[in-house]
Amino acid sequence: MRVAVIGVGITKFGEQWEDSFSKLFVDAGAAAIKDAGIDGKDIDAIFVGNMSGGRFIDQEHVSTLIADHSGLVPIPATRVEAACASGGLALRQGLMAIESGFHDIVVAGGVEKMTDILAGATTQTLATASDQEWEAFLGMTFPGLYAMIARRHMHEFGTTREQLAMVSVKNHRNGKLNPNAQFQMEITVEQVLSSTMVADPLRLLDCSPITDGAACLILASEEKAREYTDSPVYITGSGQATSTISLHDRKRIPVTDATANAAREAYKRAGREAGDIQVAEVHDAFTIGEILGIEGLGFVEVGKGGQATEEGETAIGGRIPVNTSGGLKAKGHPVGATGAAQAVEIVYQLRGEAGKRQVDADIGLTHNVGGSGGTAVVHILEK
Amino acid sequence: MRVAVIGVGITKFGEQWEDSFSKLFVDAGAAAIKDAGIDGKDIDAIFVGNMSGGRFIDQEHVSTLIADHSGLVPIPATRVEAACASGGLALRQGLMAIESGFHDIVVAGGVEKMTDILAGATTQTLATASDQEWEAFLGMTFPGLYAMIARRHMHEFGTTREQLAMVSVKNHRNGKLNPNAQFQMEITVEQVLSSTMVADPLRLLDCSPITDGAACLILASEEKAREYTDSPVYITGSGQATSTISLHDRKRIPVTDATANAAREAYKRAGREAGDIQVAEVHDAFTIGEILGIEGLGFVEVGKGGQATEEGETAIGGRIPVNTSGGLKAKGHPVGATGAAQAVEIVYQLRGEAGKRQVDADIGLTHNVGGSGGTAVVHILEK
Repeated sequence: MRVAVIGVGITKFGEQWEDSFSKLFVDAGAAAIKDAGIDGKDIDAIFVGNMSGGRFIDQEHVSTLIADHSGLVPIPATRVEAACASGGLALRQGLMAIESGFHDIVVAGGVEKMTDILAGATTQTLATASDQEWEAFLGMTFPGLYAMIARRHMHEFGTTREQLAMVSVKNHRNGKLNPNAQFQMEITVEQVLSSTMVADPLRLLDCSPITDGAACLILASEEKAREYTDSPVYITGSGQATSTISLHDRKRIPVTDATANAAREAYKRAGREAGDIQVAEVHDAFTIGEILGIEGLGFVEVGKGGQATEEGETAIGGRIPVNTSGGLKAKGHPVGATGAAQAVEIVYQLRGEAGKRQVDADIGLTHNVGGSGGTAVVHILEK
Repeated sequence: MRVAVIGVGITKFGEQWEDSFSKLFVDAGAAAIKDAGIDGKDIDAIFVGNMSGGRFIDQEHVSTLIADHSGLVPIPATRVEAACASGGLALRQGLMAIESGFHDIVVAGGVEKMTDILAGATTQTLATASDQEWEAFLGMTFPGLYAMIARRHMHEFGTTREQLAMVSVKNHRNGKLNPNAQFQMEITVEQVLSSTMVADPLRLLDCSPITDGAACLILASEEKAREYTDSPVYITGSGQATSTISLHDRKRIPVTDATANAAREAYKRAGREAGDIQVAEVHDAFTIGEILGIEGLGFVEVGKGGQATEEGETAIGGRIPVNTSGGLKAKGHPVGATGAAQAVEIVYQLRGEAGKRQVDADIGLTHNVGGSGGTAVVHILEK
């Protein structure tokens, strides 16, 4: 059975002082319901990607909070979590819910409200995605972990500091074209290289920001989809994999095995290969992350991600446009929402609704990572 | 497609100072794998029910932690959460994973490590299952919420303080027969009534304890199950529902709509009705909870739960034995693990492996609740 996306919705990403956690999700969900042309009563279940409501807003049980505040009680609502890959997993659980015959139409989305606590507590909470006993407890943070990966990538493959910066420059250029992006402004390589050092070699403009936001997709069985839309986007492939939670336990530091394994499953299910993908949202929590991503997904050879970026292959107009939305770097990274937001962007692209950042594509891919690569989830979407 | 339980495993419940969070799950999982007679490499995916690793042990991303520490990388691992109903939801996601054709054999389990933080912080963390802005923030705790439900149940239906105590007395009597239970000792009605007041009318011996523990089930498609066992237990029904997260928003305080709605779905999927159930594990986080549960599930008329308990209908040897394991009250309540542990007990009962607490049953049921009734999930298991 094929599963279609029949509607999408997303909030503005950024510091959303006026909106509560649940309102963000409800706003994105209502937009998706409207986009699908369905009614709330058509929804059978909700899957919510959320990394840490428990720490960011002192609220677990967020699935029921959302069902309640959406007026969708008594339908089932389930939160799924794997750190920053939570949104992608919500999408995958939504697929399983429909393909199993449990439900016909579900909301799969994600949400995070990160700005209600102090910045130091935010960093501590994000560090709960690493191994608490072997990484976080010893003072390791995510910029620190990705800095070590970046340093090793530079050492093994000759990736340059400038190439890392070029990821950020490209994504800000794209983000400027996205009215929902947190940062709608261009930056230069020089600005990246002179921005505040966070964890050598990564500087402030190599790092995705702290963001509030939500994104939702309405998924339907192919049969139901035909009732509501003439232009469904099908989710043809889904892949998910784990790796060691600690970076130091990986066989190779500058290669993300989980991405390669998740991609392999997704390509296999879709009957596609890397060369078929025409647009992709790739998990650039840090600039090095996008380079790891495009290598792990097979868009470029391992070690060649920096060079491909420098040569413009991943820019709009390039061979394989990556992060047309602005990516996590410029669009923003509300951690539990990101995987769902990536899929929303690909749906916009495939439906030809991406405005000034539109590319020509029939097949797109999303790549969502948890931790320093302990989880990866990949989806393939097709017109 | 039918899904079978081909193996179960559970840790000792209680204060487990020697064992880490992940070791608890790994121990339960290894026991389940051994029980199933399979090898780790036969496992396709892991679903982990966990309420609040983020607050109890400063660890989100627990699914990957567990896959890693189990040596099961790179298979997919997903955490699902709906407060104290997380374990039941893991079971349901496991069903969907198999029925959708995504996977053939999965681990569905739950785990919580609650004793690594101070008792006050534990109560605060449990309160994140209520509405943070309208309940927890104002000082409401779970004993307080259930106390209000109990008081209203007494007022509307004439349920007596002694009948509440009899739930606890029965479950301690059963727990004494369960070598994995946290409290293996009998208590009397008088002891319950003279125990420390927690939230009037609920006293200490009306409340389930703070517990560390884990429980796992190996689920397999019917076809795969036949390869490994001659005595599978099938999960024939699954139901899940939400209600308002805040108690004050419910139409009727002493009735749990979510339980009734989840039960309706589960009975329908299984082609069964309440009268067919021969043994059940019911969510007795507080004594009033079991009374609400047996009423919502249809074992007794609404309002008659206290009387049925007093008359011994729910005791071992009664019309419908409830919480033969000792229930949350005596077996213990590691919140994310509870739903899985309930299913483990029913599997033991259906396989005739429940030792001194064995009852005669071919059809059993589990009932797992999140919050004050904001989530309920019900499963029906049959030989």
